[in-house]
Amino acid sequence: MTSLCVPEDAPGRAAIVARQTLVLAGSATTHAIFDRVDPRTRVEFEVQDGTEVEAGTRVGFLEGKARSLLKGERTALNFLQRLSGVATLTRRAVRALGDDTACKLVDTRKTTPGMRALEKAAVRAGGGHNHRFGLFDGVLIKDNHIAAAGGIQKAVEAARARAHHLLRIEVECDRLDQVDEALTAGADVILLDNMSDEKLAEAVQRIGSRALTEASGGVTVDRLGRLAAAGVQFVSMGALTHSAPAVDLGLDWDA
Amino acid sequence: MTSLCVPEDAPGRAAIVARQTLVLAGSATTHAIFDRVDPRTRVEFEVQDGTEVEAGTRVGFLEGKARSLLKGERTALNFLQRLSGVATLTRRAVRALGDDTACKLVDTRKTTPGMRALEKAAVRAGGGHNHRFGLFDGVLIKDNHIAAAGGIQKAVEAARARAHHLLRIEVECDRLDQVDEALTAGADVILLDNMSDEKLAEAVQRIGSRALTEASGGVTVDRLGRLAAAGVQFVSMGALTHSAPAVDLGLDWDA
Amino acid sequence: MTSLCVPEDAPGRAAIVARQTLVLAGSATTHAIFDRVDPRTRVEFEVQDGTEVEAGTRVGFLEGKARSLLKGERTALNFLQRLSGVATLTRRAVRALGDDTACKLVDTRKTTPGMRALEKAAVRAGGGHNHRFGLFDGVLIKDNHIAAAGGIQKAVEAARARAHHLLRIEVECDRLDQVDEALTAGADVILLDNMSDEKLAEAVQRIGSRALTEASGGVTVDRLGRLAAAGVQFVSMGALTHSAPAVDLGLDWDA
Amino acid sequence: MTSLCVPEDAPGRAAIVARQTLVLAGSATTHAIFDRVDPRTRVEFEVQDGTEVEAGTRVGFLEGKARSLLKGERTALNFLQRLSGVATLTRRAVRALGDDTACKLVDTRKTTPGMRALEKAAVRAGGGHNHRFGLFDGVLIKDNHIAAAGGIQKAVEAARARAHHLLRIEVECDRLDQVDEALTAGADVILLDNMSDEKLAEAVQRIGSRALTEASGGVTVDRLGRLAAAGVQFVSMGALTHSAPAVDLGLDWDA
Amino acid sequence: MTSLCVPEDAPGRAAIVARQTLVLAGSATTHAIFDRVDPRTRVEFEVQDGTEVEAGTRVGFLEGKARSLLKGERTALNFLQRLSGVATLTRRAVRALGDDTACKLVDTRKTTPGMRALEKAAVRAGGGHNHRFGLFDGVLIKDNHIAAAGGIQKAVEAARARAHHLLRIEVECDRLDQVDEALTAGADVILLDNMSDEKLAEAVQRIGSRALTEASGGVTVDRLGRLAAAGVQFVSMGALTHSAPAVDLGLDWDA
Amino acid sequence: MTSLCVPEDAPGRAAIVARQTLVLAGSATTHAIFDRVDPRTRVEFEVQDGTEVEAGTRVGFLEGKARSLLKGERTALNFLQRLSGVATLTRRAVRALGDDTACKLVDTRKTTPGMRALEKAAVRAGGGHNHRFGLFDGVLIKDNHIAAAGGIQKAVEAARARAHHLLRIEVECDRLDQVDEALTAGADVILLDNMSDEKLAEAVQRIGSRALTEASGGVTVDRLGRLAAAGVQFVSMGALTHSAPAVDLGLDWDA
Repeated sequence: MTSLCVPEDAPGRAAIVARQTLVLAGSATTHAIFDRVDPRTRVEFEVQDGTEVEAGTRVGFLEGKARSLLKGERTALNFLQRLSGVATLTRRAVRALGDDTACKLVDTRKTTPGMRALEKAAVRAGGGHNHRFGLFDGVLIKDNHIAAAGGIQKAVEAARARAHHLLRIEVECDRLDQVDEALTAGADVILLDNMSDEKLAEAVQRIGSRALTEASGGVTVDRLGRLAAAGVQFVSMGALTHSAPAVDLGLDWDA
Repeated sequence: MTSLCVPEDAPGRAAIVARQTLVLAGSATTHAIFDRVDPRTRVEFEVQDGTEVEAGTRVGFLEGKARSLLKGERTALNFLQRLSGVATLTRRAVRALGDDTACKLVDTRKTTPGMRALEKAAVRAGGGHNHRFGLFDGVLIKDNHIAAAGGIQKAVEAARARAHHLLRIEVECDRLDQVDEALTAGADVILLDNMSDEKLAEAVQRIGSRALTEASGGVTVDRLGRLAAAGVQFVSMGALTHSAPAVDLGLDWDA
Repeated sequence: MTSLCVPEDAPGRAAIVARQTLVLAGSATTHAIFDRVDPRTRVEFEVQDGTEVEAGTRVGFLEGKARSLLKGERTALNFLQRLSGVATLTRRAVRALGDDTACKLVDTRKTTPGMRALEKAAVRAGGGHNHRFGLFDGVLIKDNHIAAAGGIQKAVEAARARAHHLLRIEVECDRLDQVDEALTAGADVILLDNMSDEKLAEAVQRIGSRALTEASGGVTVDRLGRLAAAGVQFVSMGALTHSAPAVDLGLDWDA
Repeated sequence: MTSLCVPEDAPGRAAIVARQTLVLAGSATTHAIFDRVDPRTRVEFEVQDGTEVEAGTRVGFLEGKARSLLKGERTALNFLQRLSGVATLTRRAVRALGDDTACKLVDTRKTTPGMRALEKAAVRAGGGHNHRFGLFDGVLIKDNHIAAAGGIQKAVEAARARAHHLLRIEVECDRLDQVDEALTAGADVILLDNMSDEKLAEAVQRIGSRALTEASGGVTVDRLGRLAAAGVQFVSMGALTHSAPAVDLGLDWDA
Repeated sequence: MTSLCVPEDAPGRAAIVARQTLVLAGSATTHAIFDRVDPRTRVEFEVQDGTEVEAGTRVGFLEGKARSLLKGERTALNFLQRLSGVATLTRRAVRALGDDTACKLVDTRKTTPGMRALEKAAVRAGGGHNHRFGLFDGVLIKDNHIAAAGGIQKAVEAARARAHHLLRIEVECDRLDQVDEALTAGADVILLDNMSDEKLAEAVQRIGSRALTEASGGVTVDRLGRLAAAGVQFVSMGALTHSAPAVDLGLDWDA
Repeated sequence: MTSLCVPEDAPGRAAIVARQTLVLAGSATTHAIFDRVDPRTRVEFEVQDGTEVEAGTRVGFLEGKARSLLKGERTALNFLQRLSGVATLTRRAVRALGDDTACKLVDTRKTTPGMRALEKAAVRAGGGHNHRFGLFDGVLIKDNHIAAAGGIQKAVEAARARAHHLLRIEVECDRLDQVDEALTAGADVILLDNMSDEKLAEAVQRIGSRALTEASGGVTVDRLGRLAAAGVQFVSMGALTHSAPAVDLGLDWDA
């Protein structure tokens, strides 16, 4: 209703401006929003998703009916500020992992309800990789599954009987004896959860090429370099999507 | 698919446990999720939304088919960790505002896409108040509206002609001369944006009882006490919903 | 299926004709209908919503595949005949209110299920104003709310605690002592329900500038002049939307 | 939001009362509405759809959480007042048709968008019969179809080729020579549109048992007796659904 | 995800090729699918629905982003292979019915859930006719209805009281005495179910012009000629839609 | 409408009877249908999905309002006849594969639009296994992908860069040199398409334990035994879902 305070046919133009250093992500959502609000609105991004920009940079602009711009403004910014926030944190984490490592940073399913696809794209824009999307495209047997199934061996067998042959089976292990058990059961990937740097290195050594290795639990940006050094192939980090603070972007009218 | 590694009829029970100090919010979403995943699942919360609990506190539990618990686990936790995160930050901010003030902490429309109603309830659980829900239940004329409308006077007149008589009209002002202009135009509420503590106090003085007053822009938890002291009636803070970090909650199996 | 009695590619053209004096409303629905039935259909209105026309006036025309015109005809006319009916009755009522009054005619929530937005636009086309849209954009405490809440004072307090600061609170009063109670409770607007012309004038007097005033209940077109004379600021009339008879519009083929 | 002015757990009870003489219809919608608003609400009707009641009659009641009753009240009444309005007008028209006639009163597709099924049920509650529901369950070739198809013969042939063998084909005729043409083309039903009482009687005579007969156009309640006397088998009347005024029903709290 | 193995902007072109003799049907579904997958994809059919083609015939082609073609390929072929299968079987059955007969081959409601409209169009493409679409556009009283209603007479009376006057009433009969009963009850169409060729001919004779006649039950392609010879006006055959084997169509890349 | 020929409150009971030898599948759909048609209907299956029954076997029954049974009858049977058809054909194929083989029969994505989940469950009921569900839970690089990507090596590399680490990558090969190329590229699974029995055996030999092996193309029930003998680990067969004829099931009233 507020946008009705502007004359119906008044034209408008507004720049989308970064108000802090950030990695842009989610620009496609702005197109999608104005396609619904008013498809005659022109939406143009001059910076691509995944680019890091300084405070004050104009990343794109909107042009069309002033009322339409005002109507879509908040929704568009709500998407951009969150998704660019995810990309910005991911970029920081990828840098912390270091340049000379094969270790990959991956996300988790700890995403915002309803925004998983967008947040996973933002992780890629930031330089990270994706883990499975949901329960349907990967089998990850976690502590509660093992407890409910009655052991690692039983859980892996049951999963193997039902999962199709293009899916690998990953087993979460907190201790070294569980790692042995998972290897015996035929796990394709071992998730090393909440281990110290030393224990992690030992587990990676023991597994060798018998399975892929992933570390998770208590992962902070500061610790990423040490995790990579431990030789693990993947590090997953929930905070990338569940705790990335929004970054500041705004619309400058007629700019 | 992962939950299929558990026998179909195996029963399960899991505690929902706070892994840090937090204010609980969003418990109704857990009910809603398991109503869809498997309505025979028993979901019980022993702690009410709005209660602050210590790390290690069991806030509730789930009981039913193990498969159903495993299927709904991540989605349920994703809602709880975010919404309790909002409530936890809000509680901190309300405390910072102080006990002996009539000033109210309110949220903004800078919410997560798709989760506005839930996040606004979480703000209430944390002790905050809500601002308008969307563009349809309040008129807030901001800088870009004023630019597009050709001035405060014109914007207020146009809004008044179209808004029904149960809606107040709020005008965003960055400077004192705008405050005068807004009062002349008949604004019901003045939003004092990005003002220093001193300028804010002066604006509040000048407005007196002619309009309600609200402060916004650059609001941090540390500054809240000074804003309240300036005599403003409402302080709105976007970070409550766009940058609250998730709090840690998990399921303990058979606990 | 009936439209299949026409050859698939036969072109068609039909005028939309008023068959009685009426105020046009709802023309946008005709566009929306043919956008779905067959977007290649040309829909053009030569008369704008809100214009009063005589019987026999061509208000617009349709051009395209004959089958598409025949398929959308009835649905399009069903919208036009009802919405123009609402606008026509509203125009009559606004005229009855008189030219030299500040009193505004407003609608109610007594609208046709599913058509509220369209009917409220038709009221505006007829020259009336809108009241709140639903329960979410205004607080109107009616007799049943007061009964359930345990009195006016309690009801207003509870509403104030929960409603945000851009919403005014309106209280329905049948008697003068209730008016006093509502003013004491801090009502922003008083709805004077089912009062005689004399009692209404007395109530308006008593309220003065302490609250906005609205009259409702037993409002007929004949009585509108007297209500305006009583000095009330708003008159709401349910019949505008719930009992406006359809006006007659039809399609003339090849006209 | 208004219903929040009542304490959350306060119980409520309200009678649904006729405020004028009316034929009840649409009671099932009240059940459907409260099933969505709050399924624990008890909804009971003491009068069945199709029953005529006097002003002041309690037709049913609601019992449950006061907030739920207040939330669903307006929507429930909006359905009841409109549908009972349709039934009340239909009852009047059926009486006007007379007791000693085989002629049936039927509705049309001139219904309120979105409410066709409900309004057609209301016509039955009032004692009328239904015509086809839409374009898919009956073939009615009208003036515009004939114009577009290039004559009655061509239109009937095309329809016959495509319609399945459980559908009768009806042709609208304004003149007697069209009636002959329609019979020759093999129409199963003849719609006699906008004819005077005399011409109608002559057409009915001429058709005999070769087709079913229906009258429409300019049908008012006053004229119904004369139409029945002309020997036509069906009379269709659009006003039953497009111009029935709402009847007055309300909720009496705690009654 | 698989389509991501192709560079994002790589163009693609693929022929849609019949890999066996078949009657094409469902080409509009390919347009609909690529409109959703990627509306910039060019979809062109060089052969019309209803045309019989030899193995190896190119029936159309796709042109656009290679990724889009690969994404929509399987879904498009799944529709084409099934719908062309229905048309191909229908064509065979229509031929078996013979050229010099007025008897029409019709489908049933034994269609694939969700695909009724498409399969009925495929039957028409194959040269068959449609029976009613659902329960709402025709009254067919079957054995279970008769059992539940307490006899043919009662069932027909009840149906007549409720069905509108553009619907014919069809009654399923297994025996000749039922045929008499149905005629007495005023059935408009008689469905002769599971009768031998001789009994069928006798029933048709007995019915004469008093009702339309339809045969069903145990209908195979081989028997169709004899059914036509028995003089029945319609033969319905469920296998057309429930058991037509898919025909083979594929995409040839760059062809 | 037809079901209205039965009195509103008449009770009904009907057996669901196999009219030929079949393997039951899809019984859950009958529950789902009557939950929507009328949830008070009792639906009970006495035979479990996956059980083979003789003609004449009662597999379950329905009990409730006769009208509800008649309303849901056709839809319920349409699901059962198709899904049991899939299970019946799968059972036949699994038997043809032989008892003493580790080779698994799997389905494809050549399913009926809208029914993939149900048809894949029917394949399991018949004793088969599932392949991937869609494009999102497995990477299968087919001939057209290879053509579009510019070779096997490029296609596998691109897929590996984007697919997460729980997904295996399968490559379709028509010739032995492609098998070598796929192994070099690091394919996890090789799909041997349209190969003769001899060539297939040779390919399986050559691959050894370096990748999983799957055969497809031109797979008929007769050939299954020879495919198993060739040593391949999986055989996929599109006909299981796209060309399984419906099996005959019906409702016997009051049985």
